[in-house]
Amino acid sequence: MIILDGKGLSIKILERVKKSIKRKNLRLSLAVVQVGENSVSQVYINQKEKICKAVGIDFILYRFSEDITTDKLKEEIKKISDNSDISGIIVQLPLPKNINTQEVLNAIPPEKDIDRLSEESFGKFSSPARPKPLAKEDGDSSILPPVVCAVSKLLKEYKIKVKGKNVILVGAGKLVGKPLMIWFSREGAVVTVVDKNTRNPEYFTKKADILISGVGRPNLITGEMIKKGAVVIDAGTSSEKGKIKGDVDFKSVSKKASYITPVPGGVGPMTVACLLENLVILHKER
Amino acid sequence: MIILDGKGLSIKILERVKKSIKRKNLRLSLAVVQVGENSVSQVYINQKEKICKAVGIDFILYRFSEDITTDKLKEEIKKISDNSDISGIIVQLPLPKNINTQEVLNAIPPEKDIDRLSEESFGKFSSPARPKPLAKEDGDSSILPPVVCAVSKLLKEYKIKVKGKNVILVGAGKLVGKPLMIWFSREGAVVTVVDKNTRNPEYFTKKADILISGVGRPNLITGEMIKKGAVVIDAGTSSEKGKIKGDVDFKSVSKKASYITPVPGGVGPMTVACLLENLVILHKER
Repeated sequence: MIILDGKGLSIKILERVKKSIKRKNLRLSLAVVQVGENSVSQVYINQKEKICKAVGIDFILYRFSEDITTDKLKEEIKKISDNSDISGIIVQLPLPKNINTQEVLNAIPPEKDIDRLSEESFGKFSSPARPKPLAKEDGDSSILPPVVCAVSKLLKEYKIKVKGKNVILVGAGKLVGKPLMIWFSREGAVVTVVDKNTRNPEYFTKKADILISGVGRPNLITGEMIKKGAVVIDAGTSSEKGKIKGDVDFKSVSKKASYITPVPGGVGPMTVACLLENLVILHKER
Repeated sequence: MIILDGKGLSIKILERVKKSIKRKNLRLSLAVVQVGENSVSQVYINQKEKICKAVGIDFILYRFSEDITTDKLKEEIKKISDNSDISGIIVQLPLPKNINTQEVLNAIPPEKDIDRLSEESFGKFSSPARPKPLAKEDGDSSILPPVVCAVSKLLKEYKIKVKGKNVILVGAGKLVGKPLMIWFSREGAVVTVVDKNTRNPEYFTKKADILISGVGRPNLITGEMIKKGAVVIDAGTSSEKGKIKGDVDFKSVSKKASYITPVPGGVGPMTVACLLENLVILHKER
């Protein structure tokens, strides 16, 4: 069993990002929009701040109270976008229930949408007019939703082929399942998406050559649910007693998997690295 | 075995469309963009013209020679869009190989994109900020890609439930597979997409409760490839000796299927009805 070292690979990517910023003397700023208080969100925001500092990107936090309306929040995001000093904007999810998340995400213009979560960005990703030329110094990264970028780079790093493989995605959400179903299908995999409506998920998960879970429920995926030799990628995030947890029961799954991502140190840091890489790429395209 | 009567249902939809146009005295025009000569395309264009006339929609054909460039064609489409008399625009596919199809489709503004094929329209479909309120007189149709609309209406008409069902999509193309994978997954089905890279497609197709094929290869799906009682929807289109053909070998598949669409008279006429329904809905929203 081989551990897919997301942490290690993310450091390599971030070093490349840092060099690229330094060499070209780029002045980049990441704007993070936070609404209300949420201890887990705070952990993620702090991580991003730390990494931004390390690679030389200004970090600006915009905090709004949780009783802000959807319309008001959209206005604020438009103001932030209009500021030419801001290179990229992310909205820390989840937003409070009274807010229409997708409408808020749609307020971020594609050229600053490093999370690729607006309907416009998702459209560009799913219906590409032409593949972007590869920026050599940034490796293989044209702009992709961060989780897709994270997963594709991990698979590439460990020379795990996708074409013709049986891929099972657990969860069909906006951050993980939906973009990955488009990407894996485009890469020639046989993709199956299972979710909470699936009566017998293990029937499907047991057939997976590559299984990716993005639900947000600890220990959802156990050893009995996978076949021997499967590649298991844990893109779930939830918190248990203040600790970030994935979806995969590492102990039982790692006994059967050929490759597995740990949590922490797997998809998480890769996603942040991809996010900042997107920031640099989008800045260069402007 | 029950035949899913797309032709019959499409007539009901078109009657509703016709009434709605008449009652409100709407003046609607469909612009069809054709590039080069293609006998199958011509059949489809003629069908659309006939149906437009029948329901009271003006039909305008814009014909360009096959050596037109992508940029020039985009310009022409922009000109057509700027004409406020035009309510909806479609580009008859396929386009000649020298043209970047997606770029051309992206030139159609979402409010006139009744085929929902631009990256912007696809984004709106895949990442909806909020479900559209249902326009009662138009039945259950908020705006959907025509094939999704066609399939969803057929399933609804015959009271075939989707949630939790095992759905296999054969082909991952822009017209059929890609929009349907988003839709079925959103509706709570377990969706698997197989394509030309899949070594053992029958392994997957045999498990389908609902199988939809959109490849464009006659007799691709045979009776041996499906399980008894499956719902089989044929969304493939190709031509053999000037005759429009689907993907499904009707003779062998109909012996095992519980429901099946015929070709012609299945998905095809439903798609055209949905296209014109989209035209009316988008016109009302303007």
